[in-house]
Amino acid sequence: MSITSFNPPVRTLMGPGPSDVHPRVTGAMARPCIGHLDPAFVDMMDEVKQMLQYAFQTKNQLTIPVSAPGSAGMETTFMNLLERGDKAVVCQNGVFGGRMKENVERCGASPIMVEDDWGKPVDPQKVEDALKANPDAKLLAFVHAETSTGARSDAETLSRIAHDHDALVLVDAVTSLGGNELRVDDWEIDAVYAGSQKCLSCTPGLSPVSFSERAIEVITTRNSKVQSWFLDTNLIMGYWGPNAKRAYHHTAPVNALYALHESLVMLQDEGLENAWARHDNNHLALRAGLEAMGLSFIVAEDYRLPQLNSVTIPQGIDEASVRSRLLNEFNLEIGAGLGALAGKVWRIGLMGYSSRAENIVLCLSALEAVLADMGAEINTGVALPAAYAKLNM
Amino acid sequence: MSITSFNPPVRTLMGPGPSDVHPRVTGAMARPCIGHLDPAFVDMMDEVKQMLQYAFQTKNQLTIPVSAPGSAGMETTFMNLLERGDKAVVCQNGVFGGRMKENVERCGASPIMVEDDWGKPVDPQKVEDALKANPDAKLLAFVHAETSTGARSDAETLSRIAHDHDALVLVDAVTSLGGNELRVDDWEIDAVYAGSQKCLSCTPGLSPVSFSERAIEVITTRNSKVQSWFLDTNLIMGYWGPNAKRAYHHTAPVNALYALHESLVMLQDEGLENAWARHDNNHLALRAGLEAMGLSFIVAEDYRLPQLNSVTIPQGIDEASVRSRLLNEFNLEIGAGLGALAGKVWRIGLMGYSSRAENIVLCLSALEAVLADMGAEINTGVALPAAYAKLNM
Repeated sequence: MSITSFNPPVRTLMGPGPSDVHPRVTGAMARPCIGHLDPAFVDMMDEVKQMLQYAFQTKNQLTIPVSAPGSAGMETTFMNLLERGDKAVVCQNGVFGGRMKENVERCGASPIMVEDDWGKPVDPQKVEDALKANPDAKLLAFVHAETSTGARSDAETLSRIAHDHDALVLVDAVTSLGGNELRVDDWEIDAVYAGSQKCLSCTPGLSPVSFSERAIEVITTRNSKVQSWFLDTNLIMGYWGPNAKRAYHHTAPVNALYALHESLVMLQDEGLENAWARHDNNHLALRAGLEAMGLSFIVAEDYRLPQLNSVTIPQGIDEASVRSRLLNEFNLEIGAGLGALAGKVWRIGLMGYSSRAENIVLCLSALEAVLADMGAEINTGVALPAAYAKLNM
Repeated sequence: MSITSFNPPVRTLMGPGPSDVHPRVTGAMARPCIGHLDPAFVDMMDEVKQMLQYAFQTKNQLTIPVSAPGSAGMETTFMNLLERGDKAVVCQNGVFGGRMKENVERCGASPIMVEDDWGKPVDPQKVEDALKANPDAKLLAFVHAETSTGARSDAETLSRIAHDHDALVLVDAVTSLGGNELRVDDWEIDAVYAGSQKCLSCTPGLSPVSFSERAIEVITTRNSKVQSWFLDTNLIMGYWGPNAKRAYHHTAPVNALYALHESLVMLQDEGLENAWARHDNNHLALRAGLEAMGLSFIVAEDYRLPQLNSVTIPQGIDEASVRSRLLNEFNLEIGAGLGALAGKVWRIGLMGYSSRAENIVLCLSALEAVLADMGAEINTGVALPAAYAKLNM
């Protein structure tokens, strides 16, 4: 065996995440490791919490990054809030609602499923009906921005309905945090988790979470222990919490937190609303180009995510070959369809640092070149001018 | 709010971990992020698995890094092997046996505790007795290298006893992997977890684990689902497994894995046995210096870990002040006592890249200077020559 250092190819990441990581963020990650109880590190943790509160638009004290990817953030919310025998209403309109169902079941609780078509938002009426039929439901869980389809659900309305029925609100904001409007306090969300590798332009591996006072009340008065020691917020708060003694719980992923800190400084400097607007504007440019080419979106305009564009594949074209050629010829990654949409769509991400003019023109040019070469029935020569016109508006 | 980029102080890390991270490793971490399904990334994953097999001295196919710190690696082993109602014999001779007990209980299983004094190894006779008294115990769990005390237990003997009683063997190798002899196949260990941030000289955040065929048989024939979706090896193997389709499970912590890859390349180039010998030799040098100074070890020589040195504190000296001064005046981190040993010992780590001559002389000089200034009763002027003599043997 003689393995040598790994030097990755330099890609442009326009899939469903990870998105392009800004060199400032990878640069921060490479800074010297220090101890997880070092006073300098503890000060940095406080800044991370403060900037996450800003990103989530919340004053929640329990607003921290879980030391693992978004799936662990999901488990953190479910495992801390649910106990065996509880009931939870779970909305499914894509892959991640299904993962929520798994989470509920593995907590020994019962999921009441509210199903909507993939590519559609969660239907508030169905949620209302489900909560009416299950007055003992402890929480409502749904995905704000479905990464598998590109549909946005109305988190504010769904949250209001849940509270009207005295249920907690648990929201997946993995793809929405930093990319589109999300107001945890105004919308009265009780538990929310996100990912570092989407609209925050950070490396994958951390999951920001936030819990409301109401949620903390539920967690601290549980009858049974949280079934994960690693994800038990009662213990984690000894390390991350306000006025905490910074007691050792687990060894924090020090360098990954440097990266998250830097990405949050960049978000703060840009301004949250400006970041939302950038995602919107760049989406309009990409959309103008793709539609000019003849591709269409599977999600209706009203609830289409700007950062995750699910588009149809031209008739007779092998979608996997297109993605391979984009990767091999242009170092450009776009996403495949997932679950029910596998083979049916491409998912083009415009998340975080990936959401910029140079990526849009690269994507449109490369896609047009490859599709034209493969004999696809598309309009050529019109995508770039259409996109460029929107970029300059 | 206006928070600026975080520039950590440059420390020398001689605590219980994280240890010093080699610049090659942080450099690797800063390489451009690529997709977790990118063919180039998938090839790198195969190399990581191969090098972890070497580090663990195993042919186990299920040898992978869990995408979270060592505590999550611990949960991965317990949650996958245990079901509600199971019984497990857990050895406790320090902090981490207690954490194992918590893991067993949170799986809905019953821990049978085998207790030994902190600083002592696990007593094989007590294990034998516990297994005899509990013939239905599903597994025996113990810590190979107790980071909280610096004691090494005889993993080979304990494993043999467990198999004689038809129990699986689950081992915490967080601090031993790469630092002292560990032979997963020869010793017939069924499940083992480690940490990236100790003797591998990598950044914290990943937990290498390995499962034997016998353990996999138990996992794949469970009656109930693993209570964590994120840590369910049945699912993770779809992404990491041999001949896997590389199905998306969770987004891998891409850049953290670059770092682990680089640290494993360095281990491979040094040679595993050479790394073990380096830890041993440098321990002897540090020990000679500390003993010359008048400090003593709390763990007996026969089962003392070379990479984690628990030493007594001179009479009348406030141990926390010493650590603060070392940090503030010399940027040197050494560890405090943990749990039952809090306030009673210092834990001086010589793990991975921290285990080198320059760290030993820095530590001895700085400690001597500070202790002398505080009026401690120590021998001065003798530690360095004593250590240097050993370094040159």
